[in-house]
Parts: sequence; C-alpha cells; structure tokens
Amino acid sequence: MNTPKILDGKAVAAAVLDECRAETAELLAKGIQPGLAVVLVGADPASQVYVGSKARTCAELGFHSVKIELPAETTQEELLQVVKDLNADPKVHGILVQSPPPKHIDEEAIIRAIDPRKDVDGFHPENVAKLVLEDPTGFVPCTPAGCMKLLEVSGIDTNGAEAVVIGRSMIVGKPMALLLVAKNSNATVTIAHSRSKDLPGICRRADILIAAVGRPEMVKADWVKPGAVVIDVGINRVEDSSKKSGYRLTGDVAYSEVAPLTSAITPVPGGVGPMTIAMLMKNTLQAARQFGV
Amino acid sequence: MNTPKILDGKAVAAAVLDECRAETAELLAKGIQPGLAVVLVGADPASQVYVGSKARTCAELGFHSVKIELPAETTQEELLQVVKDLNADPKVHGILVQSPPPKHIDEEAIIRAIDPRKDVDGFHPENVAKLVLEDPTGFVPCTPAGCMKLLEVSGIDTNGAEAVVIGRSMIVGKPMALLLVAKNSNATVTIAHSRSKDLPGICRRADILIAAVGRPEMVKADWVKPGAVVIDVGINRVEDSSKKSGYRLTGDVAYSEVAPLTSAITPVPGGVGPMTIAMLMKNTLQAARQFGV
Repeated sequence: MNTPKILDGKAVAAAVLDECRAETAELLAKGIQPGLAVVLVGADPASQVYVGSKARTCAELGFHSVKIELPAETTQEELLQVVKDLNADPKVHGILVQSPPPKHIDEEAIIRAIDPRKDVDGFHPENVAKLVLEDPTGFVPCTPAGCMKLLEVSGIDTNGAEAVVIGRSMIVGKPMALLLVAKNSNATVTIAHSRSKDLPGICRRADILIAAVGRPEMVKADWVKPGAVVIDVGINRVEDSSKKSGYRLTGDVAYSEVAPLTSAITPVPGGVGPMTIAMLMKNTLQAARQFGV
Repeated sequence: MNTPKILDGKAVAAAVLDECRAETAELLAKGIQPGLAVVLVGADPASQVYVGSKARTCAELGFHSVKIELPAETTQEELLQVVKDLNADPKVHGILVQSPPPKHIDEEAIIRAIDPRKDVDGFHPENVAKLVLEDPTGFVPCTPAGCMKLLEVSGIDTNGAEAVVIGRSMIVGKPMALLLVAKNSNATVTIAHSRSKDLPGICRRADILIAAVGRPEMVKADWVKPGAVVIDVGINRVEDSSKKSGYRLTGDVAYSEVAPLTSAITPVPGGVGPMTIAMLMKNTLQAARQFGV
C-alpha cells in the first residue's frame, strides 16, 4: 500500500483559470472581450446548475457572458434561430447549447448549426474531424481536454504508456482515445466498453486508466494494476439517506478500495469535474483569439 | 499447426463487384449512370497503375469514368479549379485525387475542396466526422472498409473480440479502429504504433490483428496468438534479384512463419489490395444513390 498522489482537479482548474484571467486581460487590452453564450432549453435542475456555474466563471474572468434560458416547448426552428443569431453576434466567440435538450429537439442538427469557429464544446463535425486529423485549430471537447491537462500538469508521461479508456461516447470515450493516441501523446490506447469481454483483465493492463462509463463504482480494486494512474470521469448520483439531499456523488471507480493501489487518482467530486469548466473557458479564449486576428 | 483459412480478397472483391454490377444495372434502368472521376497529378508509376486499374474497373461495371491526368507542374489553383468543375459536373458522383500529389500541392486543401457528397475516398472532414459519429451516410475510407467487409464475409465475429490495429494513419489505422469499436462491430480495440512499448506482447493479445504500418514482414510468429485472425494491409516493395522486375511485394506480416499459427489470414498480394478498389466502387454507387434520390 502506498499513498497515491491525489490529482486535485480543483487546484489545477484554478491554475488554468488564472492563466485564462491573465490572457483575458491581454485580449481586453487589445479591445477584445471574450464572449460565451450558453443556451438552456427547459428547466432540468442539473443543467441549471451547470449553466449557472459556467456563467459565474465567465463573470469571474471578465468574459462577456450571455445566458439564454428557453422554455421546454421551444421548437427546433426557434432554437435554430437563436443559434443563428449568436453565430452572427460579434460579441459572442463561443456558443454552447446545454445537453441534453428536450426530446423533440434534434440535437445533432443544432450542433451542426453552430458556427464551427464558435463551437467551444468541440461537438461540431468540423471539430470532430480536426481532432482525428490532429489539427490544433479545432476545439477539443472539454472533458477529455481536462483529463489530458490534468495528466500533463501532474507530470504523468503518456509516451509509450498503455492507456485504457472505458467508454466509447462521442463526448468522452472516443475523443479521449484520439487524444491519447495522437503524436503529441503517443500512448498505446485500448477502447473498452460494456460489450468487452473480461473488462477487469483489460483494465488491469493499464498504466493509465480512464473510466467514462457512468456506472457508479464499477471499477474495483482487482481491475487496477498496482501503480496505475486512474482518471475517473464518472459523476453519478447515488441514493444516500444519510445526506440531506438524499444522494451523494460518486465516480465510476470504487475510490476507497482502488486509491491505495494507484500511483495517482482523481477524486469525485473535485477531480475531472472542475477541469471541464476550466477547459471550456480556455476554448472560449482560443475562439476569441482565432476570431481576433 | 493447423491449416489457416486464406482470406481470399480477390474472390471477395469479385463478389462485391458482382453486387456492384447488379446495382449499376438497376440505377441505369432508372436513368442514373454512376460516375467516378480520378485525378492524377504527375507521373508517379505506382499511382498510374492504381489509376489505370480504377478506370478499368469502372468500365467493367458500366460506370461513367473520367480520368484526368495533369502535369506535375499543375498549380494548386489549377487543381482546385479541376475539383470545382468536377463538383459541378452532374455526371460525376465520386471524385478521387490520387495520393500522393507533388510536394507543392496542399493535399489537405484539395480534399476539403471536394464536395463531401462526392468524396468517395472518405477523407473529407465531413466524412471523417461521420465515421466517428457512426453516421452511415458518410463515406468510409476504402481500405479499412475493405478489411471490415473481408471479416464480415468470412464470418469472423468482431463482437467482444480483442482487436489490435498497428498503425495510426488517417487512411487506415484510425478509421479501422473507429470501425471496429463502433456499435455494429463491438470489438475491444487497441491502437498500437511505432512508439508503443512491447509491440509483440500487445499484438499477442489480439483475436483480430490488423497490420497497417508499411514495414515489410515486421509481424513475426511470436507476435501472434495461436488461432488469431490476421489482416495484412501492408503492400511493400522489397528488392528481389530473382524477380524480373527486381522486386517482390510483401506485406507487414512475415507470412510464411505467421500463417500456420492463425485461424485465418490475408495473403499479400491478393488480400486487402483488391478489396480497396471494390469498396471504392461501392462508395461511388452509394454516392450515385444518395444523389439520385
């Protein structure tokens, strides 16, 4: 048993935001105020929390911040018009439509409607392709970008390392695998998922294990090679009657049994979560810079 | 030692082309003649062979076939204009600019200039993104599509299988990995490459091993798990004074020592190679169909 290094996402995110603050000041001095618009359709409570915290972070950094809250009945056409207006708004460099939208909305079509130069979520096909093509002018989805930043800042070398990503979503799993295998990372990457055989055995190969499945505490001690680095992307609500809220947050990793085996691990909360917002701000700055020139 | 199944790409490609011929007849009956334009800049002998064989296959199927041969001095602007004209030509459903172009040409920009609906090579960002997004309206690059077809036709089940792809190129490695991990394949996929540590050990895990590195006979017997399926994408010219041409073609796999260990293996030549052209014809038909409606 050793004492693992806790990868403190809160602290790293704060440092990233400090950099963002400094860069914002430089842009302001050139007459450019970075602007982020967040669109929320419907009143999903978790989404409201996310959107609120994004707006707050914008305000702290000195960004121009637009928050558009639309009723759940908003039509596809109306939402497309909102996106169009934001595309045309020179004060807005980044546009984010909070996911998930109500069921009657075609999310794919909404994402396609966003000007790819303002797509700070990195979900537009243009940016998806740039990720595959390793083109740095694209926007990298915030959560995997945050995981990479956390590894980098923590001095974890990905070169030649065996990385295993559990999960193959568009938002985390696939972009994470593409980032890790890219020429500036050079990891050997395995993408595993719910249909993989012997998931524990596959995970045990990992020098760097990324859990992004959304199943509470699925990754147990016997899934982890001693000395591995474990990045837990999961944020799951689990019922807990001892809590006032009636639930607690837990990751995809059974932290208390896994942590002692690892050389480094992210806690939940306070690991990947804070990094996601920080990378969103970084992406918005990138958009403002790319527009500004 | 067992007798491996030889994955006969020539035979499977012939069957795919038979399907294409039948489908072409159906389209012709509706007044649509599938059309493919192949553009060759400069006189690279290998490229001339490829372009010639593509044109010949078009003719055999009853496609409208355009072959544009341009001098090596063609400028970027001139080539862009050729692409533009082909984009506008209603008789042309598929456009392919033979790679590699001369050094002064920005290939990336040429690919982007092709109408993504005519990008039968599947290299345009729009199609790259569709591959990641598992959107079947996109065009899949021909070589990895050919490998998948070969697996499918040979009754090799990818579900839950461990697949290892050696190589991370845009043309083969990455799309191959994305196809294998997609929901209609469900393989566990590892992308390995020149910077991977213990490449032999990683490859030995594979139920399905795809070699796409371009290094002659790199994959040796001790890289292969007994009973594995081996797909050899490499086509390398190796000096051979016993041949009239002075060279022979060899794959990335040391065939004679590896084959006896496998349950199935592709030969070189006659494995993946013929599949690539067959899938190009399939993609052109898909383009003609998608335009035709």
